[in-house]
Amino acid sequence: LETDAKREGSDHLYGLLWFNEHNRNVEDHLIENRFIDVLVSTGANISEDILEAIGGTYWQGSPQVDDAELLKHRIDRFYDVYVDEMEYRRMENFISDFARGLKQNHAYSSREFLHLLGKHLSEMKIKCIVSTAYENNVPIFCPAICDSGYGIAMLLAKRQGHSVNMDRIKDVDESTRVAERVKQTGVIYIGGGVPKNFTQQVAVILTLEEGDHNLTPHKYAVQITTDSPQWGGLSGCTFEEAVSWGKISPNGRHVQCYCDATIALPILAHALDESVSNRRNHPDFTWLSNTK
Amino acid sequence: LETDAKREGSDHLYGLLWFNEHNRNVEDHLIENRFIDVLVSTGANISEDILEAIGGTYWQGSPQVDDAELLKHRIDRFYDVYVDEMEYRRMENFISDFARGLKQNHAYSSREFLHLLGKHLSEMKIKCIVSTAYENNVPIFCPAICDSGYGIAMLLAKRQGHSVNMDRIKDVDESTRVAERVKQTGVIYIGGGVPKNFTQQVAVILTLEEGDHNLTPHKYAVQITTDSPQWGGLSGCTFEEAVSWGKISPNGRHVQCYCDATIALPILAHALDESVSNRRNHPDFTWLSNTK
Amino acid sequence: LETDAKREGSDHLYGLLWFNEHNRNVEDHLIENRFIDVLVSTGANISEDILEAIGGTYWQGSPQVDDAELLKHRIDRFYDVYVDEMEYRRMENFISDFARGLKQNHAYSSREFLHLLGKHLSEMKIKCIVSTAYENNVPIFCPAICDSGYGIAMLLAKRQGHSVNMDRIKDVDESTRVAERVKQTGVIYIGGGVPKNFTQQVAVILTLEEGDHNLTPHKYAVQITTDSPQWGGLSGCTFEEAVSWGKISPNGRHVQCYCDATIALPILAHALDESVSNRRNHPDFTWLSNTK
Amino acid sequence: LETDAKREGSDHLYGLLWFNEHNRNVEDHLIENRFIDVLVSTGANISEDILEAIGGTYWQGSPQVDDAELLKHRIDRFYDVYVDEMEYRRMENFISDFARGLKQNHAYSSREFLHLLGKHLSEMKIKCIVSTAYENNVPIFCPAICDSGYGIAMLLAKRQGHSVNMDRIKDVDESTRVAERVKQTGVIYIGGGVPKNFTQQVAVILTLEEGDHNLTPHKYAVQITTDSPQWGGLSGCTFEEAVSWGKISPNGRHVQCYCDATIALPILAHALDESVSNRRNHPDFTWLSNTK
Repeated sequence: LETDAKREGSDHLYGLLWFNEHNRNVEDHLIENRFIDVLVSTGANISEDILEAIGGTYWQGSPQVDDAELLKHRIDRFYDVYVDEMEYRRMENFISDFARGLKQNHAYSSREFLHLLGKHLSEMKIKCIVSTAYENNVPIFCPAICDSGYGIAMLLAKRQGHSVNMDRIKDVDESTRVAERVKQTGVIYIGGGVPKNFTQQVAVILTLEEGDHNLTPHKYAVQITTDSPQWGGLSGCTFEEAVSWGKISPNGRHVQCYCDATIALPILAHALDESVSNRRNHPDFTWLSNTK
Repeated sequence: LETDAKREGSDHLYGLLWFNEHNRNVEDHLIENRFIDVLVSTGANISEDILEAIGGTYWQGSPQVDDAELLKHRIDRFYDVYVDEMEYRRMENFISDFARGLKQNHAYSSREFLHLLGKHLSEMKIKCIVSTAYENNVPIFCPAICDSGYGIAMLLAKRQGHSVNMDRIKDVDESTRVAERVKQTGVIYIGGGVPKNFTQQVAVILTLEEGDHNLTPHKYAVQITTDSPQWGGLSGCTFEEAVSWGKISPNGRHVQCYCDATIALPILAHALDESVSNRRNHPDFTWLSNTK
Repeated sequence: LETDAKREGSDHLYGLLWFNEHNRNVEDHLIENRFIDVLVSTGANISEDILEAIGGTYWQGSPQVDDAELLKHRIDRFYDVYVDEMEYRRMENFISDFARGLKQNHAYSSREFLHLLGKHLSEMKIKCIVSTAYENNVPIFCPAICDSGYGIAMLLAKRQGHSVNMDRIKDVDESTRVAERVKQTGVIYIGGGVPKNFTQQVAVILTLEEGDHNLTPHKYAVQITTDSPQWGGLSGCTFEEAVSWGKISPNGRHVQCYCDATIALPILAHALDESVSNRRNHPDFTWLSNTK
Repeated sequence: LETDAKREGSDHLYGLLWFNEHNRNVEDHLIENRFIDVLVSTGANISEDILEAIGGTYWQGSPQVDDAELLKHRIDRFYDVYVDEMEYRRMENFISDFARGLKQNHAYSSREFLHLLGKHLSEMKIKCIVSTAYENNVPIFCPAICDSGYGIAMLLAKRQGHSVNMDRIKDVDESTRVAERVKQTGVIYIGGGVPKNFTQQVAVILTLEEGDHNLTPHKYAVQITTDSPQWGGLSGCTFEEAVSWGKISPNGRHVQCYCDATIALPILAHALDESVSNRRNHPDFTWLSNTK
């Protein structure tokens, strides 16, 4: 990706990298080396890694188990991964405590909220995706942030009398402003879901504002997915299909990798590490942090 | 589902039915006959049907096509379904016009926004899911509403100077209040994604507030999905897994149907129609409409 | 399929229908009404239905079970279907007994073997796919017949001193001779695997013998599958891909249905029943039965 | 696998490794280092690699292409891999020429046929899976051998007057005799299909002959597959399910890897290479080669 962008002689930006789904250590590595300029994530990806960062643990078990027995012991299952429900709640309470320190009369974007949370985590020396992104000036968008422990945490705060306002439109606005400032973008989708569509739709919004002469599809694209095109959904759809919408450039390079991300992403990160010594320059998004 | 709930002798609620993904006519039918009490939807499901309702059309084509050629003619492709980009924009502009009539100094939940849009569409005699739900007092939640034409439409309004605030926390709050008022719930998942998790997480929120003695998992559950459990994601996970989290009751009945919803949902709706003559009573959610 | 063939004005053949995977009653119905001219099957499809035909039963259970416990009680599991191992062995012994009545110094094709077994079952008034096909002069090919209870049954006979010779080449020869006698073919694939490839390869064999001027791909094609094209295998591959090989005609009609056959096949059979009153004429394959 | 078997102190056999699906170089490596004791393969796997071994080439292309155009140029497509039809026929003719040198009044097992073909290829210095297996005394079974270029090749020979008899029962007999001589087995499934079931059924055949006291399920098991358990087929079924049938031991270790084999197999082979310096001893199957 990187290499391609450089070969184009572009000297402004390159390589917006958008993400979702787990693999914390790999993501930390990618963020620290600035292989990621902007991260678009699910809520689970960036909340469940906090569980570990503050002392919790995930266990590998069998997917063939009596779940009513697990419930009795308050162990939550994700296919063959187990976690202690009490540690899950500790993570939710941690976020809820943070939320109670936020302003009530302000509309937050998820990017803004996660910037402040990253600052908080960083000051507490808690190493996780959100804090690493903060330290490296990588903005994180999480359009469906309330569909996760974040939603539960912030409802707890609200019920205790502290209402935080998480405005969805502001997410669309800020991500569009990022796209407006760069000349060329590349995207990497790990999984699909809301983060994929949120990132794809950025490419078509400018057109609506400024007309078809201003079509700015993503030029480079990689997708790692276990979904399939024939179901017709956005998660599994091909980049060819995205070309018809003006979301992906017919002139760029794109690769679809049908594989579980826990297998494919480490291989990709390893290869990136071997082939790219360093990125010469990367976009500065500190202006976003000053955005209210 | 219905039948089961009645057999339980419950006289308060039954059959919360939550939805996402298309099948407009089937959904209209289910709403009008109140087989659905609450609808949780993706943005696409309830925006792309407005395109047709205001005069647009979807076409069936081949998935094997030159997408750069489609782009040239501004035809958007969803696997083997085609649509005119100009009609898509007309739908987005329609929603944008509506949004410009909303209050700027108010935090809207998606339920509240869609209630008002339903009223607007109903007054214009435009028959679609949102207006049908309005007419039948069925609340619609759309937690990731900005991940669709709605997001684009509302950003257009914002750029034209009219900022609507779509607060995500308010969605979590309102859906939890629905759950707090009912004795027993049943859920039907058409696909997975954010609507599934949003609905599942309602079941665990009360526990956090009130303690484990108040565990109120969904009792009845059906899922129609093309995803698979082994990938570990929420969309494809089994109800057994959900039992461990306290989201689904180990004592209720649940069925997973691995099938494309465009095949399975009409069969389900047909069977429901044949076996249930009418629902004796259904919950009244008009109090939600009065919620600000 | 039928309708299409008639519209073509063909008066020789139409509607070779090749099958695999279960659905006994539906298949019986299709065979009796001669919607199937030739059946290509897996071994399981046409042996496991004999288990029921001679008095055994399949039970529906849960896929979440302790299989070591099932083993202790000699209950065999197919995902959520259970069967008594003793009944399975009874079926294998039934076939083994039949095999011991066959000639030892003769090379059998699977078609020939199944014709004789069908006669035997028919005489015993045992109603199953093999006997129904016999009674309706529908030949059955089972290229991987030994990959099932048939293989086990015939090895038992061999170990008891009675060696039956099941020649694979003879299957290829006979199926090619069928194709040589018909003007036009249509194929329906229920699942994929060996039966699909065996049927597809018939279309290319003539070319090798007689040259490219004699390319006779299947004209009509339907596939019901849960596999996906991107894995590159024959089971999930598209009919477009098959066009490149000369297996499927670019001028015919073909439909791929990504669905479990237990859902899609009954719908298809029902629709066929409603729309086609009777087949005017169908090919006579009695000459095959006289083949040694 | 290896390591486990040694830990058991077994000094007779270990690591029967059964295979299907491509990856020629990896398989050659595994055979030469005797990480494979017995190979069970599809026909395509061991015929399409001969195409390359005798000078042909596979090309990577796009899956989005006009297949009627490919047909015109006689280019065959496997998803995104292309091959020249003339080279495919050259491979088939090569096998057909070999087949015309075999005895006509003899019933061959696929193992026997492939042993002789391996000898022939080895003498011609053609390096491919079949010749490498021959040189390393690794028997290959190919139960559905006629469902591939082999079937076409042998039909061509038959039509030219030279009938080879490929007896399916003999395959079941010989593979069972292998199993009867070893104390403990481990299996690795690359994909599913007939090779998987053929290998699984070996474990239950002895029981039928000798009674339930002689249950000898495979102790170690690995599967790499893109299929899923919920469809109920043998290809995607879990090893837990196989435990109920007595095919897989409840006391052994087994791992299911849901991944495309072209990604997973090289990783597996690499790890095996790093962790196992050499196999101390491996079973001698030369007695099989003397089997007529």
